[in-house]
Amino acid sequence: MKVAVLGFGVVGVGIWEMLGQAENLEQGPVLVRPGKKDAPWKVETLDEILADPSIDAVAEAMGGVEPAFSYGMRVLRAGKHFITANKALVAARGIELSALARERGLAFLFGAACGGALPYLQQLCLAHRGDRVLRVSGILNSTTNYILDAMQRRNMEYCDALKDAQALGYAECDPTADVSGLDALRKIMLACAVAFDRLPADGLCCEGIDRLTAADVTDFKRRGLTCRLLVSGEPVGDTVSAYAEPVLLPPDREECAVLDNFNLARFDAERMGRMALLGQGAGRYPTAGGVIRDLQWAVLGGRQMLSPACVKVTADNSRVRHRYYLRLPRALADRFTPEEYVLCGDTARIVTEPVSVAEMHAAVREMREAGADVFFAAMA
Amino acid sequence: MKVAVLGFGVVGVGIWEMLGQAENLEQGPVLVRPGKKDAPWKVETLDEILADPSIDAVAEAMGGVEPAFSYGMRVLRAGKHFITANKALVAARGIELSALARERGLAFLFGAACGGALPYLQQLCLAHRGDRVLRVSGILNSTTNYILDAMQRRNMEYCDALKDAQALGYAECDPTADVSGLDALRKIMLACAVAFDRLPADGLCCEGIDRLTAADVTDFKRRGLTCRLLVSGEPVGDTVSAYAEPVLLPPDREECAVLDNFNLARFDAERMGRMALLGQGAGRYPTAGGVIRDLQWAVLGGRQMLSPACVKVTADNSRVRHRYYLRLPRALADRFTPEEYVLCGDTARIVTEPVSVAEMHAAVREMREAGADVFFAAMA
Repeated sequence: MKVAVLGFGVVGVGIWEMLGQAENLEQGPVLVRPGKKDAPWKVETLDEILADPSIDAVAEAMGGVEPAFSYGMRVLRAGKHFITANKALVAARGIELSALARERGLAFLFGAACGGALPYLQQLCLAHRGDRVLRVSGILNSTTNYILDAMQRRNMEYCDALKDAQALGYAECDPTADVSGLDALRKIMLACAVAFDRLPADGLCCEGIDRLTAADVTDFKRRGLTCRLLVSGEPVGDTVSAYAEPVLLPPDREECAVLDNFNLARFDAERMGRMALLGQGAGRYPTAGGVIRDLQWAVLGGRQMLSPACVKVTADNSRVRHRYYLRLPRALADRFTPEEYVLCGDTARIVTEPVSVAEMHAAVREMREAGADVFFAAMA
Repeated sequence: MKVAVLGFGVVGVGIWEMLGQAENLEQGPVLVRPGKKDAPWKVETLDEILADPSIDAVAEAMGGVEPAFSYGMRVLRAGKHFITANKALVAARGIELSALARERGLAFLFGAACGGALPYLQQLCLAHRGDRVLRVSGILNSTTNYILDAMQRRNMEYCDALKDAQALGYAECDPTADVSGLDALRKIMLACAVAFDRLPADGLCCEGIDRLTAADVTDFKRRGLTCRLLVSGEPVGDTVSAYAEPVLLPPDREECAVLDNFNLARFDAERMGRMALLGQGAGRYPTAGGVIRDLQWAVLGGRQMLSPACVKVTADNSRVRHRYYLRLPRALADRFTPEEYVLCGDTARIVTEPVSVAEMHAAVREMREAGADVFFAAMA
């Protein structure tokens, strides 16, 4: 199968290189925007790719919703498979791309958009067809895991750990999407779409790690707990819960063994039990490897990750409840019914009784809008 | 795809049940040997299955090399896909079954034979085709992991932990294949065949956990180490290394977070990096789920896990070297050049300089033949 590549950045270069080595796959032209660097077989318009009947598939690595979406639709209309690593694209327009691909009998696969090298969406797909998926969850952002691990094991301050991650190429110059939890949240949106036929498009709760301090981490360690940024989704009535938030974990939880920039993508199925995939979820070759895996699957006949039944829904995070740890100004601690309460100057560290995810995220948003500095994390 | 099932034991019942729920799959008849319990749609001879043109595939869950091998060959000659969870069969006759299946354009898949629910062989297959696998390894036996974890976390004696595993249905009445390391070794043989096109048929090294005592575990804990039974395989010249042995691991290694009866199946690939799959590697539904996954793959067009290049080889374990921990009679400790040496009565606990796997396994075999009680484990 001959494969054209859209974009020649970090991931595009990786895909091109790996195409040269992979069985059953062949390098095609690379679409590079005018003014960008040269590729080994460069074309400057999509038309050149669409017009070439020897090209069977197109791998997209440009990022962003547009022009990726229009390009994807044109690729499918031209009768070529469309494989992407672009989570923003799939979260926003995946259902439309999948419908067109299905109509034409073509592949629309996006396994690299969630978990990079990990065959997470592909396995969810199979589990959804042959079993019943009960829950999707995990550590799906590499940058934040690197920062949390550096703070925990090397006692680093948040800013230093972030600079370190940037120096190593794990974090973007603008790390907002990573540290705010948005990147991980988008991935769990895709997982929900594949596993439950529900793509949660609003009503989501998203808390990152950008309020975390070295003093917080010292307190977690004193309690024997490790902090990780987890995402989670599960069926709730006709919709799903879907949220990202820091979680404090006891030492025998496998998430604590996820170090550096690794990911852990997990699901629970009714019969097959719990399964977790551990590996590199981002970076040139892990992401390119995920695209190659989807291309191989397309060669074998794999076509859709989304079922025709998949619809957009509003997430419901009001029914899942956790105990929460909060670090907040002493005066605000009364707002909750704490099970534990530790005071240090004007700062209180409390553990609440079970509170719903929606309620806790809303309460903290309100406190912050009133100017309070608050960190919170669910207790696993 | 309509699927007949051979055998109606723990796994066969699971396959039958899951076939009733899975998309694209349909329950067919079940071959039950005369005198065995009834199945919902029972037949007593393979001929009835072979003669039915509506049956597309046969899932084998009888165990043992014969009659499973003859049945598999007849199934393929009759033009039906053959899917099995039987590692003894594949280790002994997999290359012949794969050759016949390839010749006929049929599927011969055995993902459930190594890792149960974990899509380990399938991922190795894809990584072998699109990248280069450097090493396969992991925790691939559930019974021994349960025992080791119970000894480590609950301070149990070996015999009590084994009885516990039997009571929970994790261990067979005769647990020899599990506790001797043979079951895990067979699985790594299959992984080597898929990942390296080399099926190591002799020259293997296999050490289990049946010599382990609570006093040993106490000593590991004092050193801050956790014991796991690991298997490993990697290319060595034209052949591979392939062995099973206990390993002592520092606390930040992810194997330490593999608890109860869980498995961790890992591989390292040149570009995609390290990947590990964590989940239930044995039991009714995890194993049946692995068979269902292979059947779904066959529906999509998946055909062979073994490449035509795969050949049987003699393993070479003389080039991989580890430092080893040994508990042995004081008088025998001189045989090695210990880096560490602790004496307790007539028993010595030593850590050696790096020694090859083949050399250590041979040395211990010799000491045991002379009547010595020795436990050993590699230092991770």
